[in-house]
Amino acid sequence: MTKAKGMSRRQFVSTAAGVAAISSLTSKSVFAATRAQSSGSAVPALRDEPTWKDQGVENLAKSPHAKLRDIPVHAVTIQSGFWGRRREINVTRSIPSMHDLLEANGRMNNFRRLVGKSNAPQIGPVFSDSDVYKWTEAVGFVLQSGDRPELRAMAEKLIDEVVAVQEPNGYLNTYYQEEHKPLRMLPQTQTTGHELYNMGHMLQGAIAYYRATGDRKLLDAGIRFVNDFLLPNYGPAPKKPIVSGHPEIEMGLIELYRITGDKRQLDLAGYILQGDKRIELPEHRTIYMYSGTPFTARTKLEGHAVRAMYACCGATDYYMETGDEAYWQTLNKLWDDMTSTKMYVTGGVGSRSDGEAFGDAYELPNFRAYGESCAAIGNMMWNWRMLAATGDSKFSDVIERALYNGINSGMSLDGVMYCYRNPLAFDATTGDKIRNPWYDVTCCPPNLERTFGSLPGYFYSTSNDGVYVHLYDNSQLDWHLENGTGLKITQKTKYPWDGAVEMAIAPAQPSEFSVYLRIPGWADRAEVTVNGKAWSGVTPGKYLNVRRQWSQGDVIRLQFPMMPQVLAANPRVADDTGRVAVQRGPLIYCLEGIDQPQGVELSEVGLRVGKQPESEFHSEFRGDLLDGVVVLHHPGLVAESGASSSVLYPRYRGESVKTRRVDLTFIPYYAWSNRMATGMQVWTPLLES
Amino acid sequence: MTKAKGMSRRQFVSTAAGVAAISSLTSKSVFAATRAQSSGSAVPALRDEPTWKDQGVENLAKSPHAKLRDIPVHAVTIQSGFWGRRREINVTRSIPSMHDLLEANGRMNNFRRLVGKSNAPQIGPVFSDSDVYKWTEAVGFVLQSGDRPELRAMAEKLIDEVVAVQEPNGYLNTYYQEEHKPLRMLPQTQTTGHELYNMGHMLQGAIAYYRATGDRKLLDAGIRFVNDFLLPNYGPAPKKPIVSGHPEIEMGLIELYRITGDKRQLDLAGYILQGDKRIELPEHRTIYMYSGTPFTARTKLEGHAVRAMYACCGATDYYMETGDEAYWQTLNKLWDDMTSTKMYVTGGVGSRSDGEAFGDAYELPNFRAYGESCAAIGNMMWNWRMLAATGDSKFSDVIERALYNGINSGMSLDGVMYCYRNPLAFDATTGDKIRNPWYDVTCCPPNLERTFGSLPGYFYSTSNDGVYVHLYDNSQLDWHLENGTGLKITQKTKYPWDGAVEMAIAPAQPSEFSVYLRIPGWADRAEVTVNGKAWSGVTPGKYLNVRRQWSQGDVIRLQFPMMPQVLAANPRVADDTGRVAVQRGPLIYCLEGIDQPQGVELSEVGLRVGKQPESEFHSEFRGDLLDGVVVLHHPGLVAESGASSSVLYPRYRGESVKTRRVDLTFIPYYAWSNRMATGMQVWTPLLES
Repeated sequence: MTKAKGMSRRQFVSTAAGVAAISSLTSKSVFAATRAQSSGSAVPALRDEPTWKDQGVENLAKSPHAKLRDIPVHAVTIQSGFWGRRREINVTRSIPSMHDLLEANGRMNNFRRLVGKSNAPQIGPVFSDSDVYKWTEAVGFVLQSGDRPELRAMAEKLIDEVVAVQEPNGYLNTYYQEEHKPLRMLPQTQTTGHELYNMGHMLQGAIAYYRATGDRKLLDAGIRFVNDFLLPNYGPAPKKPIVSGHPEIEMGLIELYRITGDKRQLDLAGYILQGDKRIELPEHRTIYMYSGTPFTARTKLEGHAVRAMYACCGATDYYMETGDEAYWQTLNKLWDDMTSTKMYVTGGVGSRSDGEAFGDAYELPNFRAYGESCAAIGNMMWNWRMLAATGDSKFSDVIERALYNGINSGMSLDGVMYCYRNPLAFDATTGDKIRNPWYDVTCCPPNLERTFGSLPGYFYSTSNDGVYVHLYDNSQLDWHLENGTGLKITQKTKYPWDGAVEMAIAPAQPSEFSVYLRIPGWADRAEVTVNGKAWSGVTPGKYLNVRRQWSQGDVIRLQFPMMPQVLAANPRVADDTGRVAVQRGPLIYCLEGIDQPQGVELSEVGLRVGKQPESEFHSEFRGDLLDGVVVLHHPGLVAESGASSSVLYPRYRGESVKTRRVDLTFIPYYAWSNRMATGMQVWTPLLES
Repeated sequence: MTKAKGMSRRQFVSTAAGVAAISSLTSKSVFAATRAQSSGSAVPALRDEPTWKDQGVENLAKSPHAKLRDIPVHAVTIQSGFWGRRREINVTRSIPSMHDLLEANGRMNNFRRLVGKSNAPQIGPVFSDSDVYKWTEAVGFVLQSGDRPELRAMAEKLIDEVVAVQEPNGYLNTYYQEEHKPLRMLPQTQTTGHELYNMGHMLQGAIAYYRATGDRKLLDAGIRFVNDFLLPNYGPAPKKPIVSGHPEIEMGLIELYRITGDKRQLDLAGYILQGDKRIELPEHRTIYMYSGTPFTARTKLEGHAVRAMYACCGATDYYMETGDEAYWQTLNKLWDDMTSTKMYVTGGVGSRSDGEAFGDAYELPNFRAYGESCAAIGNMMWNWRMLAATGDSKFSDVIERALYNGINSGMSLDGVMYCYRNPLAFDATTGDKIRNPWYDVTCCPPNLERTFGSLPGYFYSTSNDGVYVHLYDNSQLDWHLENGTGLKITQKTKYPWDGAVEMAIAPAQPSEFSVYLRIPGWADRAEVTVNGKAWSGVTPGKYLNVRRQWSQGDVIRLQFPMMPQVLAANPRVADDTGRVAVQRGPLIYCLEGIDQPQGVELSEVGLRVGKQPESEFHSEFRGDLLDGVVVLHHPGLVAESGASSSVLYPRYRGESVKTRRVDLTFIPYYAWSNRMATGMQVWTPLLES
């Protein structure tokens, strides 16, 4: 399926034709009546280039400072392969079961309660509405790839129940009701109460659903919240002040602006990103929230990792619309800070459980890593925006690192268990449960679902001179260049298990343009041929510009080196002293206890690698294991038994620990903890043989 | 000064003669009147062997399962030397300034408020009373070493103000008043409200003050709380249940029992140690509190470290009184768990800031170490009790490790700044302030003060066959053997800077007995002579039993090897992989940035040690530095500049990092952070030269 089915341009027009049709769906007629009389309630027409169904994960069609433009999710069909299975399970198991869990945990009754359809009390944290919206966004992305009637029915029912509780003034939130009603939008509530965070996710969910179906129902509710409730009352003095207690609304407002063209929405996002001095906050709070002070005064990543990532996303969106140079300098400074001192080898960020926060520079503990799934997703989203602004492959390298590892680890292979934390080492004797079907703070599961749902939209971008290829997997692109020339690209590959990618380039008519092929930073002996002839200038960590006259039948073949690589950490990362990690292609590997010979403790093993570390691993595809993975075998070392029972602080004698050889087996990190609980580690000591 | 001055046996008797004299000091006459009519208010006579002024840190004179018996604090005079300066500053600066800080922060007004002498509101956390009691205990110990009129005057005023608020029923707490009064002793309050914790510290403070002065005023208030309020109303059914939300009362009750002989107090402690099923608590809470379930069912150390240590102290006290074998087995299991998997090389315990808690086995982070000063003190107190029960030197090794390092680090050299956390590595760029003059949770400062105040009581114990020598420093013992023979021991030494200790043994008359000399576990080439002749059987980590006919003029000379030693950690301690620590004598050393050549980053240095690591250090006494310390010089290595700016995850090439030689200077860990803030680390990587 490459295109959304069962929906037509006409359907979109008729759905968007007027407010009355939507109002009639609300169950409290008083709302509709009041709204009908409200001067602020008219929902504006939308700018329609490109049309709703051709908008990508972001709609950058009019963004003056975006170098690349998203392709729509429906333009890429991911076929059987690495991501195909993950995406199918996401649709058939994860999203439906999360719907049931949201129901079972009262998230929808929170809405029904307000229109007299449920007697259940308000339940869950203040940000519970956002769980519903993120789930809606996941469905929206899935429907962008083609109709799924059962999911669409679920979503339509849910959307009806959401819009039913919107108040005449545009306000929409199930928590700030009854005894909590007086707290609405108070500075303290904005600081901790997630009102605007919820609405940011509502906007994102509404936009994804609109881009799938053309259905404006939820989108119009979002517009009413912004245009009727927020814009007239909140903003720079003399309006009431805003603080973004958990950044998210910024992204929502700017993506809305990209649809409506209403610059007030963009300006409001810019105002929020700079903070409002009228709301005075202690420094530790503005650090934690990564908001409340001017974004452009930030010099490092700190505080709550998801908040910081979402703030950076919003700020990059703001830059792409405005070209504000102060934002750009800040964003690059923060990116350097993160990638050189605060990012795990898995692309995870946020070292500390305490405050779910970034740690100090080089503070990257393994066992105690937090690495929240949402933060890795935020990292990918931010880098997607930085990539769009520049076309620089250093950003796609981070996207790939996070996606294949620190995000992919967040969902179990069967699609119904989720990680909140994604540690890089695990001691099973602690009894910690890393994968769980439900969290009362259930931000991560639907976040993972929306990410996998949106994945086709991350494969390609267009530029004014051609097309960028970011990700490799069996897939078909059916889209067009920015000049309108139709373009199909078919990828055939077993990537990431195998490094060969065959890519058929088929423009509608012969045409000169650039195909920018991403050469991953890890691929230091990559080869590219066009129609069998080597193409020169292949540089790891750069896009290879293959510019020529293309016509049907042209074939690019890429060959990436899939030799296992051994990575060191910066010596300042104290937790990785004397240790190395193993990577193969884009995948970070780990040792899981269950795969090692009986009696071998992970804490006692070491790798034995010399000047040719690649030659000391043997790769084997195991179709029967973990839905099919390449495992790596390595003749390592294990301390002779007894070493572990030594006293805590033995005298160092300048002698090597006595070791014996042991066959170690590595699996991809993303696949850990899908069998019985045993230990796991990514960073393993080097031992001398 | 070796003995308390200005107090006589007669004074004690007259003070203890009756309640009326005390009652007349209370400012609310209604209390005295009511109490006079109360049948429960008669304060019993105390058992008086040994007399108040000859009781040690613990009074083990009648404890059937104690092998060793404490000597009184006044029996040892610590003279000029390592501990002499620390103790003098404790008395002249720390304790007086803490008195002023307790005043300035409203801790005493909390008492005055209740008798109409202050209009200030209740202030500080629920355990604020305990700060006052721990300070009183510090003064009590100081006065045991000799009168300090100014401190005594402060303490007397404070004690008057404390006892003035005791209610007729014996209840005493400044927090559970007015709107908090209905919360008294509710199960939830016991779980989190520190009522009994406060009273445990009150008993300890009262007992220390009583042992210094014979003054029963505060002690009798404590007895009334226990005998009038607690015992009649709380305990096994049909009385109301108790849960020890923060263990401490157990130690207090048992030490009180050792004075009063009232077995109900001991039994109540035993009841508390076993928990009461009538108070149902979630498992995470009983883990955190280290109480609420049977102590004898514990199998590992976990939860809040100070709570766990205090529980272990109480349980060991209970064992020494009862000989309950289940306690003994549990205590030894827990001790093995702690010392082999959860204790820092500094003797600090409690790895996690989150919950101020023990971590998992081998979870011993350095930068993020919690290592609360109170927990190291609790560790020392527990090992002191285990030592008393056994005479086993493995416990004194832990005492020395904690005292010289993880406790000693807790107070600045000038005596007015305190550590709450005692990390083993520090990055100054974080801006963290590790030493502070005041914490709103100010448990650690007065805890350090009482510990240094009580220190003379830890130097020696007696046994039925002689005397044990635990600590070495310039000092004089003036005491007697258990058979009554007078004994003076004079130590002359520059320990721990120098390994030579001269010890003059002078019994009142020639007598055969054992002098058990502690040979520290680190001292693997120690030598002992008696009157110039070598004594055989010297074994590190054991007490050397020097049994002979002793007479005046006999001299023992000990020579401990003071070569720097290089320590490794158990390989399971992931945070110390590839790293070593340096110890000299009992002192753990660290690198502090300020002592290294300019431009050298601690994160980039390594030690260069081969099979004779000791020979690669040069010791130098620096009288001008940090109040006089031996520093260690080592020709180490530093990565060539640029290494630190490498990307986060460079490829490992099987090649050594390029390094150059650098002169590294180590200082004792306890003295870190007494100059401008720079980095610090205890565990440093080994690099190949």
